[in-house]
Order: sequence, then structure tokens, then C-alpha cells
Amino acid sequence: MLQPELKLRRDKIRWFMAQQGIDAALITCNVNLLYTFGRIVSGYLYLPLNSPALLFIKRPNNISGEHIFSIRKPEQIIELITENNLPMPTKLMLEGDELSYTEYNRLAALFPESEIVNGTPLIRQARSTKTPIEIEMFHRSGIAHAKAYDKIPSVYHPGMTDRELAIEVERLMRLEGSLGIFRVFGQSMEIFMGSLLAGDNAANPSPFDFALGGEGLDPALPVGVNDTPIKEGQCFMVDMGGNFYGYMGDMSRVYSIGKLSDEAYTAHQVCLDIQNEIASIAKPGTVCEDMYNTAIEMVTKAGFAKNFMGIGQQARFIGHGIGLEINEMPVIAPRMKQKLEPGMVFALEPKIVLPGVGPVGVENSWVVTNEGVEKLTICNEEIVEIEVSN
Amino acid sequence: MLQPELKLRRDKIRWFMAQQGIDAALITCNVNLLYTFGRIVSGYLYLPLNSPALLFIKRPNNISGEHIFSIRKPEQIIELITENNLPMPTKLMLEGDELSYTEYNRLAALFPESEIVNGTPLIRQARSTKTPIEIEMFHRSGIAHAKAYDKIPSVYHPGMTDRELAIEVERLMRLEGSLGIFRVFGQSMEIFMGSLLAGDNAANPSPFDFALGGEGLDPALPVGVNDTPIKEGQCFMVDMGGNFYGYMGDMSRVYSIGKLSDEAYTAHQVCLDIQNEIASIAKPGTVCEDMYNTAIEMVTKAGFAKNFMGIGQQARFIGHGIGLEINEMPVIAPRMKQKLEPGMVFALEPKIVLPGVGPVGVENSWVVTNEGVEKLTICNEEIVEIEVSN
Repeated sequence: MLQPELKLRRDKIRWFMAQQGIDAALITCNVNLLYTFGRIVSGYLYLPLNSPALLFIKRPNNISGEHIFSIRKPEQIIELITENNLPMPTKLMLEGDELSYTEYNRLAALFPESEIVNGTPLIRQARSTKTPIEIEMFHRSGIAHAKAYDKIPSVYHPGMTDRELAIEVERLMRLEGSLGIFRVFGQSMEIFMGSLLAGDNAANPSPFDFALGGEGLDPALPVGVNDTPIKEGQCFMVDMGGNFYGYMGDMSRVYSIGKLSDEAYTAHQVCLDIQNEIASIAKPGTVCEDMYNTAIEMVTKAGFAKNFMGIGQQARFIGHGIGLEINEMPVIAPRMKQKLEPGMVFALEPKIVLPGVGPVGVENSWVVTNEGVEKLTICNEEIVEIEVSN
Repeated sequence: MLQPELKLRRDKIRWFMAQQGIDAALITCNVNLLYTFGRIVSGYLYLPLNSPALLFIKRPNNISGEHIFSIRKPEQIIELITENNLPMPTKLMLEGDELSYTEYNRLAALFPESEIVNGTPLIRQARSTKTPIEIEMFHRSGIAHAKAYDKIPSVYHPGMTDRELAIEVERLMRLEGSLGIFRVFGQSMEIFMGSLLAGDNAANPSPFDFALGGEGLDPALPVGVNDTPIKEGQCFMVDMGGNFYGYMGDMSRVYSIGKLSDEAYTAHQVCLDIQNEIASIAKPGTVCEDMYNTAIEMVTKAGFAKNFMGIGQQARFIGHGIGLEINEMPVIAPRMKQKLEPGMVFALEPKIVLPGVGPVGVENSWVVTNEGVEKLTICNEEIVEIEVSN
């Protein structure tokens, strides 16, 4: 990672710090270190408002450079700040929504004279508008993601279960360069590489706040495939995380085994229409709840409101910011007054679940430009029919 | 999950609570809900010392039963405790090492009259000795894990990179039933399904406190394979997480491309000897640091101390408890005075990294019985030679 890019990112955070009278941040969570230092280490980035950042590294032991110091434990940070002729901060921010209660208190205790505040919302706000280099990572991810999806029909074999097919799709993603790991903000949401939902399993609710659920294979991970055969006349939706360079690109596509009911194609077109309508109104200044309400109006008028974003347990959002984690700001949901800003990247995923058929709809990743939005995941959006062998 | 098993687990936690004068626990982290409720939900298990547990579920919306209540937000918990004729706790424990600072404080604020303490160490202590059903899950995991490893030579092709081979090994694990997800205690350690370390990449340090590191494919996940070709006369070690039923079985095996140097076979045998010596002394009452010191004495005498558990950056442990997470109690490391207890399950992983060759050694999962230890991962422990095609 080039230093100007890292400086740009750190200065985005500093800009918000200045607004809130915060004169230093101590950053240690993986995604925030990746954001501000360009790679994950076991250590701490100390970010003063008006001086260069200091990096304190526990592991690995082979990183050196200006302003980089090797430490064994965080208690050594204080003397190193002093040795670098920096004052103790008056108001310090820590990652309060991400650090454990125990770790937050351990770090806060190092600064007994400082006011300590939760910096997570501020860092997430800074991260919500991407730099040109981050947007380029999403562009590249979208290309690799589409290459993997284009090969999905070739790995399907009649009689496969959803689990067996998901394994082959995961392999396709890995072969195109997916790092595999699926990063989510918060400790409560878990998933493996993403989901493949076939037939009625798409209507099964999960504990997690993803757009759709699925029963899962085991109570230890109750989401996604449930090892049932994929049937003719039904469809499956692939929604794998597209983490090729650390950035969680997001894209869903639908594949059918033979033809589906007419209603399924109608419902799919409703989702495409919703996507295209929202894409046409989305631009800097567009309010997130307005985008959500547009979707609800359209799906209600089309008669699919009860099947929108699940059945029985319906997700209350149609899109979400993406970045180093799958659930960044903004959220496209009811009562969200946040406005789109240039550089924001979000996934938009209108989906309808039809009993006896499966999930239809679409998901793409979008970046907000100065004039509107640009699609980052270019790949056929129709239902891809896999012919039934006779 | 059968109720008697859940009651047994909850009573293990209650036993420690009683010792510390704690009269209730509020549990919400995924692995602890899986442990005490048998499946993951978005919700809270309220565990009073002397009354049945109450379960408050936000999602999914299709779980009902005795003592189960649907809620939208944790603030509803208080009225439901009262409606169930339970007193407010005098001393309540929360998952302080696992919950974020923000979430811990939100939950603590619900109980303004209660003393709040960190319950994570206590729950981890309860979880460190497994029930017979949990041990059975490890037995089954070991069988599936070994089946996948037995097929590794069949997916190797000459000219493969470590990344390409890792993808095929991941697929084998998934086909045998691996859930894929790799659960680690603490927010700082991340890895995809496990690692495959070939040749000199095994000596590359990582930020994470795993036994070995590896450079990784991207600064976003600097651990494991680095896309270099696997060479003749070198070896690779497979160390995939064996999560087939929620329990993180752990096993490492070594495969060579053609013959290795004599030194490599000697070093491998040293690791097997260390494993076997430790297995012969391990029983209830054995002190963890004594096991560690035994390994260090043996590897020093054999002349491989500088290559033990890495080169340059060496791991300071040779084993670790396993369970729902890969890093449970006890830790087999210096200054660890903890004694083995019946029912503890741990991984033992003496490994030596040889420059120009790769990593040798072994890792198995073991359960502590009343008399000694029993191996849970039965699979050929010699270096498996993959013949070089001519």
C-alpha cells in the first residue's frame, strides 16, 4: 500500500476527529489496521490529530520502518509516545463497538488522564466513502466475481444437493482468487463464504440479519444450504462474498433447473425493475429511506410484498454499505435519513421468495459517483436456465 | 440437542457461578449460546443459579417452547424476568472478554441494582472439560477429518501452487461435511479454513498466534499459502480446522513430493517422539508447563530447538485446548500451572521447520481420560510421500 493512500485514509479519520475534539486514536482491530496501515498486524496504530501515526507491532517480527516500533504488550505504548515527544491525548478514541469490554478497559487504563470515547462510529463513517484506490479494488473484485459466476452452470450435475453445488461454487470463487474469509461488523453474524439458497430452503429463517436465511447444515451454523436435492422447475440463488482483495464485493444471481413458473419470471423482473428504478434515482443527496420506500411501493403494487426479502421472517432492508466488511454504512432501510455521498459503495438486493420455486431477484454492488451510481458487478442478470438433461 | 445434555452443560456453569457468588448469567455470544442452548440464535439465555434458564430470541422467529420468549430488543428482558417471578440478580455475569464494550455496557445498564462481573473466564473454564456427547462429536469429527486427509495425495498434480492445492483440500474437507467456518476466541486471530504450508513459506511469520504462519495471499489476510509452486524434495503440512459438528477438531499431517533429506525424516521422528512421550505422561493432574518443558528438552537434545515451532518467529506453545473454538483452555505453554482434568480435549502439535524443505511434525487431538489420554484423530502419521511422475 502506498503511503499517499494511507495518509489519505488517516486524514479522513482525522477530519472527523477534529470535528469532535478528539486529539488521538488508538486503533487495533484488524479491519481498521488494514484500513489505516494497509495490512493486518497484531499491534496498535496510534493516530494523533496533528502528528504522523506511530505503529506498535507485536507480530509479525519482520516489519520495520519509520515510526514503527516493536512491542511485547500494550503497556509499552505510553513510554514510546513520550519518547516520540508527543503529549498524552486530552480526548482519546478507542474502537468501542469492536473491542471487547475487557480489552477496551485495558487500553483505556493506559491513559488515566485522558477522556476516552468510542471511536467506532467515526471510523465507520470515514470508511463509508471509499478512496479511488478502494473503488478500483471493488472494480477488480467485480470482474473476478463475475468470472466465477459465469462458470456455475458448468459445475452443476443433475441430482446434486444444494450443499454439493455450494462446494463447487466456493471452489470456483477460490480459484478466481477469493481469500475465502467473510468479514462482518459485530460479533453476532456468522456465515461461511456466502450462501446458495435453493427452492423452499430460501424461506427458512436464520438467526442472522442477512437478506435471506436458509436452514443450514447444523445448529452450529444455522444459515444457508441444508443438503436437499435441487429440483427441476426450481431455482437457486448464489450470494457469495466477493472478497478478492480485502473488499467484500456483493453479488447475487439466480439459476433455474429447466423452466420456472411464469410467476417466477414476473417476480424476477419486478426485482430488476426495482433495482433499475433505484439506480436511476440514486445520486449524492438521495436519502436512504427514500430508496427503501421506492422498493416497497413497487413490490406492493406488483403484488409480491408478502414474499419480498423472505417469507414469514422478512429482512427490513434492501441494501447495505460494503467495504472491508459486508455490513458498512449506509443501510438502505426504513427511517434511515442518511444521504448518499460520492464514493459510497453499497449492495442493492431486491429479492422475492416464491414457495415451491425458490428465490428470484438480483444483487449488485454500486459506487456513488458525482452524478449518480455506477454498477461494479457486471454479469448477466436474467435467470440463467440450466437445461434439464433427458 | 437433548435437554439432559443442555442441563448438564448449564449446571457445569452454575457450579462455578455458585463458587463465585454469582446468581445469574446473561449469555448472548454465539458459541456460548450454542453450548447452553444447543443452537445459535440471535438472542439471550438468562441463566439463574437456582431456576430454569429463560431464552429470549430475536431471530429466527420459528423457535418456541417452554421458557422461550420472543423479543425485539434486550430492554424487554427485565420485564420478562419479573413476569417469570424471578428476582433481579445480586451479582450478574456477562461475557466481558467477548462482548464489545458498547454491548456489555448496554446489557449491564439493564440491571442497575446488580453487581456486574466478567463471566467469560468462568464459562471458558466450564467449557474446558467436555461432556461425553461433546467428546463423541470430536470422535466423529476425527473420522471425517482423516477421510479427507487420506484423499490429499489424489488431488495433487505436479506443478500446482500451494494455493491451488489448498483449494482442493478445502473441497475435500467440505465434501466430508466440514461446515467451513473456523471459530477463534478473541477478535484478533483470523484464518480461512486452516492452513497449508509448503517449503519455505512455513517459516514466514504471521500476525496471528497460530503454531506456524505463512505469508498469505494478500495483506488483508497475511497467513497461509502464498501461491508459490510446490517443489520436488520439499514437503507441505496440512493443518485444516476440522469443524464438522461445531467442534474444532485439529490435525496436521505432512506430505512430501518425492524424497526429503535425511534430516527431515529425523526431525519428523523427533516430533513423533515428543508427541508420544507427552502422551505417555499426560493424565489427570499433569501440569501443562511440564508437558511443554518435556518437548523443549527433547527438541533441544535432538538439536532442532532453533527450528521448533517456526524459525525466527517461534510460537511459545506446543498445544492448546479445543472445543467450539480452536483456542480453548488449557494452553500447553511455559509457566502454565494448570493441570489436566478428565474430559479436557486438546491439540498437541510439535512441529519443526527446515529451510529449503518445509515443515515436518504432527498434530493430533486428544481427550483426557481417567487414566491418561486418548487420540481422537487416527490417521497415518508418517510423512506421506507423493511420487514424482517421470
